[in-house]
Amino acid sequence: MDEKEAGAARLHVAGDLTIGAEVALDEGQAHYLRNVLRLTPGARVALFNGRDGEAAAELQTLGKKSGSARVLSQTRPQTPEPDLWLLFAPLKRARVDFIAEKATELGVSRLAPVITRRTQGGRVPTDRLAAIAVEAAEQCERLSIPEVAEPVSLVDLPADWPAERRLIICDETGGGGPIASVLADLAPGPLAVLIGPEGGFAPGELETLTDIPLVTRVSLGPRILRADTAAVAVLSVVQSLLGDWRSLLPRSSQPS
Amino acid sequence: MDEKEAGAARLHVAGDLTIGAEVALDEGQAHYLRNVLRLTPGARVALFNGRDGEAAAELQTLGKKSGSARVLSQTRPQTPEPDLWLLFAPLKRARVDFIAEKATELGVSRLAPVITRRTQGGRVPTDRLAAIAVEAAEQCERLSIPEVAEPVSLVDLPADWPAERRLIICDETGGGGPIASVLADLAPGPLAVLIGPEGGFAPGELETLTDIPLVTRVSLGPRILRADTAAVAVLSVVQSLLGDWRSLLPRSSQPS
Repeated sequence: MDEKEAGAARLHVAGDLTIGAEVALDEGQAHYLRNVLRLTPGARVALFNGRDGEAAAELQTLGKKSGSARVLSQTRPQTPEPDLWLLFAPLKRARVDFIAEKATELGVSRLAPVITRRTQGGRVPTDRLAAIAVEAAEQCERLSIPEVAEPVSLVDLPADWPAERRLIICDETGGGGPIASVLADLAPGPLAVLIGPEGGFAPGELETLTDIPLVTRVSLGPRILRADTAAVAVLSVVQSLLGDWRSLLPRSSQPS
Repeated sequence: MDEKEAGAARLHVAGDLTIGAEVALDEGQAHYLRNVLRLTPGARVALFNGRDGEAAAELQTLGKKSGSARVLSQTRPQTPEPDLWLLFAPLKRARVDFIAEKATELGVSRLAPVITRRTQGGRVPTDRLAAIAVEAAEQCERLSIPEVAEPVSLVDLPADWPAERRLIICDETGGGGPIASVLADLAPGPLAVLIGPEGGFAPGELETLTDIPLVTRVSLGPRILRADTAAVAVLSVVQSLLGDWRSLLPRSSQPS
């Protein structure tokens, strides 16, 4: 959290944000407020929980292991976040951490690790990815935290796939059309994007997804993008053409 | 270079790629081919120099300090790359390195550090950024290397600005329209995009750019993006709507 600016404390909490309520802060938050931001009881912080919008609160207690803040007022109502999933093959640590951070900033609602035939690395650190997503949500002024799903194998995706959700596949083998023109033709609806592993999908591997009703393959241009670059690229283009970058929403928490 | 796959050796060189020519490899390349990929003379590599397309070559010598490869044939002709500049305020090491890598993959022709009032950090490591750009170009199958410019102050930008180049400013203060609809209205021409520092531009700072003839402000949605996220996001949307992601180009060097 070293890049946060002092005074910009914004924390994700579990408790309800009813006015007057005293909300518990965990050990990491207490440490951050006390030792990094050097705040003391009486200081103002912003809180969100994914349900009650954003609230202004006042620090009540700040110990070594915990703290608390009293809710003063609601500063933003809860608004719907985009319904956009990112399916990605696990990568090396720095690159998968990067995907969790960037996808959260770009408004993804679900981070879903997918094991492909060429997936590198062992266990998927879902706990670490969830912590990164919380921190990124606090920093980017989201009102929700993306869910981090347990890893599933690519071949098992069709079995549980919700029929109404379109799967956009970034197909480095050239099987997709240019992304902007392909997206322009899509009907509205929930979306998921799938990024392949470093080295791409194995030959024939994407054929296992033909049982998913709505599948669209897109190309991200003539250069070979790393998997983490492709994730940020496709999410940015999707949000700009189909998502919540199309209108200018007021940011009531914007610094004045 | 630890993420490259064995057998995918693709190197940027200085020498001409005339068929039959023996092209010099530097110490880093010799080390990489010998100790990482474990190649020996006789092995095939791909070479490019930014002028002569891409060539297949055969390793001739491979010593501790240098090596050489003989050009066998041209495998791709030189094609024009996008004319797209990225202007960015220097950031902490990991994030500025990330920008150099991603911008290269996304087809930027010039990486230009810009010092703003809120720019953090000291000296801009242009040598390191150039090395990262070379490695990213080798990996993403580009035929050119982006230029890394010396840092300039934001206030000095208008003095040397080429009048025909449009400057797209990612304006986190809400002064820009939604990026997709703004870009849809632009006439063709050379482009530059400008990303602010962490913490944004200082109040009034962008007013110093009013002497640049073609300036367009865009918004990247309702969430606060980190500067490195914003760089990748805006380049991806620009390439998808105005750049070389709009058509499907054959990749003759694609693995068959």
